[in-house]
Amino acid sequence: MELAGLSVREDAVGNIFGRWDGLEPELAAVATGSHIDAIPYSGKYDGVVGVLGAIEAIRVLKRSGFKPRRPLEVISFTSEEPTRFGIGCLGSRLLAGSEDLANSLKTSTDIQNISFLDAAGSAGYSKNEDDLSSVFLKKGTYSAFVELHIEQGPILEDEGISIGIVTAIAAPASLTVEFEGNGGHAGAALMPNRNDAGLAASELALAVERHVLDSGSIDTVGTVGILELHPGAINSIPSKSHLEIDTRDIDEERRNKVVEKIHQSAIKITKTRGVKLSDFRVINQDPPAISDEAVIKAVETATKELNLTSKLMISRAYHDSLFMARLSPMGMIFIPCYKGYSHKPEEFATIEDMSNGVKVLALTLAKLSSQ
Amino acid sequence: MELAGLSVREDAVGNIFGRWDGLEPELAAVATGSHIDAIPYSGKYDGVVGVLGAIEAIRVLKRSGFKPRRPLEVISFTSEEPTRFGIGCLGSRLLAGSEDLANSLKTSTDIQNISFLDAAGSAGYSKNEDDLSSVFLKKGTYSAFVELHIEQGPILEDEGISIGIVTAIAAPASLTVEFEGNGGHAGAALMPNRNDAGLAASELALAVERHVLDSGSIDTVGTVGILELHPGAINSIPSKSHLEIDTRDIDEERRNKVVEKIHQSAIKITKTRGVKLSDFRVINQDPPAISDEAVIKAVETATKELNLTSKLMISRAYHDSLFMARLSPMGMIFIPCYKGYSHKPEEFATIEDMSNGVKVLALTLAKLSSQ
Repeated sequence: MELAGLSVREDAVGNIFGRWDGLEPELAAVATGSHIDAIPYSGKYDGVVGVLGAIEAIRVLKRSGFKPRRPLEVISFTSEEPTRFGIGCLGSRLLAGSEDLANSLKTSTDIQNISFLDAAGSAGYSKNEDDLSSVFLKKGTYSAFVELHIEQGPILEDEGISIGIVTAIAAPASLTVEFEGNGGHAGAALMPNRNDAGLAASELALAVERHVLDSGSIDTVGTVGILELHPGAINSIPSKSHLEIDTRDIDEERRNKVVEKIHQSAIKITKTRGVKLSDFRVINQDPPAISDEAVIKAVETATKELNLTSKLMISRAYHDSLFMARLSPMGMIFIPCYKGYSHKPEEFATIEDMSNGVKVLALTLAKLSSQ
Repeated sequence: MELAGLSVREDAVGNIFGRWDGLEPELAAVATGSHIDAIPYSGKYDGVVGVLGAIEAIRVLKRSGFKPRRPLEVISFTSEEPTRFGIGCLGSRLLAGSEDLANSLKTSTDIQNISFLDAAGSAGYSKNEDDLSSVFLKKGTYSAFVELHIEQGPILEDEGISIGIVTAIAAPASLTVEFEGNGGHAGAALMPNRNDAGLAASELALAVERHVLDSGSIDTVGTVGILELHPGAINSIPSKSHLEIDTRDIDEERRNKVVEKIHQSAIKITKTRGVKLSDFRVINQDPPAISDEAVIKAVETATKELNLTSKLMISRAYHDSLFMARLSPMGMIFIPCYKGYSHKPEEFATIEDMSNGVKVLALTLAKLSSQ
């Protein structure tokens, strides 16, 4: 299959690769890309700019008559958002060789009890069901990986800077927690006789915030994005609660300390409220990634040659680049977005900023593919 | 239509009435009944015992050769639980002549945006859509109303008593609350820049508990049975939260003070967290109901004649009787239930206890219908 002048292949989980063979096609390729999936009620720039932008960057290079020495590859990663199967960067995590994920996906199901393998099968993927490790890429497959992305924070817009050059990606940890109590009728059960799983969840949510603020660093963040009560009726004391917690830092140890404190708080709540901690699981707890010096240099030089302002910065959101860094030297190019908004419909980037990002990406790919 | 020897009619919202004409059918009837709907993941005794038990009580009286002076009516009330349209005792509230409810139901919708009128229409009811006040009953329609119900609390079982005779029903208030914030990406938005609608909800849930405990009376209860976050993704800061709060007391003024304190806490949270209180509504705030002396007397006498132990008690749960008390003298008969469990699958009453309840109800109906 060919698309935008690239030869296209898909792997067994839906990662899509478009390849432009270089003058020396046997060399390791330079890769770029991002994702096109989104969370519910999201915007349309997160990820998408880095896939369409990558295709456009290749078209720019082709139009200019450029001939790459190394092959260039555009990757559209599958399931970057954790929405359906609870794990972020599913596609790039597998490419980077996560045996744990390849195993756990054999039995993963979504909220409607559809298995990952059935979902992938229905979408036409996963012909090789029994062994998702077929998706793994070898180290050395790529000589470099660069991802173009909106900042998802307010810094570039606030400071009027066109390009952010990412030096490190903050390390995310995701937790899933469940409390259980006896439930009961909201009128008949007196307060001293209750063990309300919903109030246990509220208490833990506020404890997450407290532990994050106590870390002493502005770089520590923590969020309870999911808090669900069962049975969820106004006149019923919650007998179960389910929380999903996300906490991140550029300092792995400091973040792990927050995770440990959240665990201690959950245990303490079981004692004070008489509820059961029926689940406390660390779904993922990834190390941060450091960008490669040579890739940073290539982006910096491209930015200067294009007369654009730039700034070295940390990515507080994580990206497929976090996992591609396990396979190859990695770098990221950020562009400003409106008020730093992301993961909501107001997410926006101007055509000028996207155009600047594509130009920097194209020139960076040209440089890296010549090395 | 006839069922179990009763002539049956339905009204425009699905209340079902089964009538046994007495020797003097022009007299006001004695009524009994309850509901057969349930909350999600509920038990099968709450309400149902009072409908099937009422039918059985009538059969007992018929088998015994008894001829009532006044007519006897069994009522199966529609939508006692507030699950679908957010308002408890929808059927009996309308029978009791709630103009507010008759008006608001014209525009009420469920969570899937299906209107009350469409839902009633699909179920074959509400031929008289434009005027639900057609359902209202006149004061004096019934000379007395008695409801048989499981206690939904542990007292009768704990004390080994067969029959609870209800002297008053605690007064429920229901609130719906919504907070709104800016949402955003769980990694990119730093903690000081957040206004997390989910944490606002958790804080209010804990404030509800605090205000209830501060009332100084064991009779005050409060519950957050519904707490929902939007968009509900692990990597997204909640931009909206929705709570439904239930608080009850046998003292109306004390309960209204709790409602006022919850409102003050919600306003305070908007200031400390920078969120918007986009909704704060008292859905219902009903006065308590006092049982009628003559009905209490009839139940007490019936219990004694049957050699059963009994106890005068308060109903902390509310029931259709709360609204039937607006139409006619009212009383309730409680039977023990396992560990006081209700609104969950473990809800249970023994055949012996249900049988005792039915006998007491039958004898009470016999007495009241002869007066």
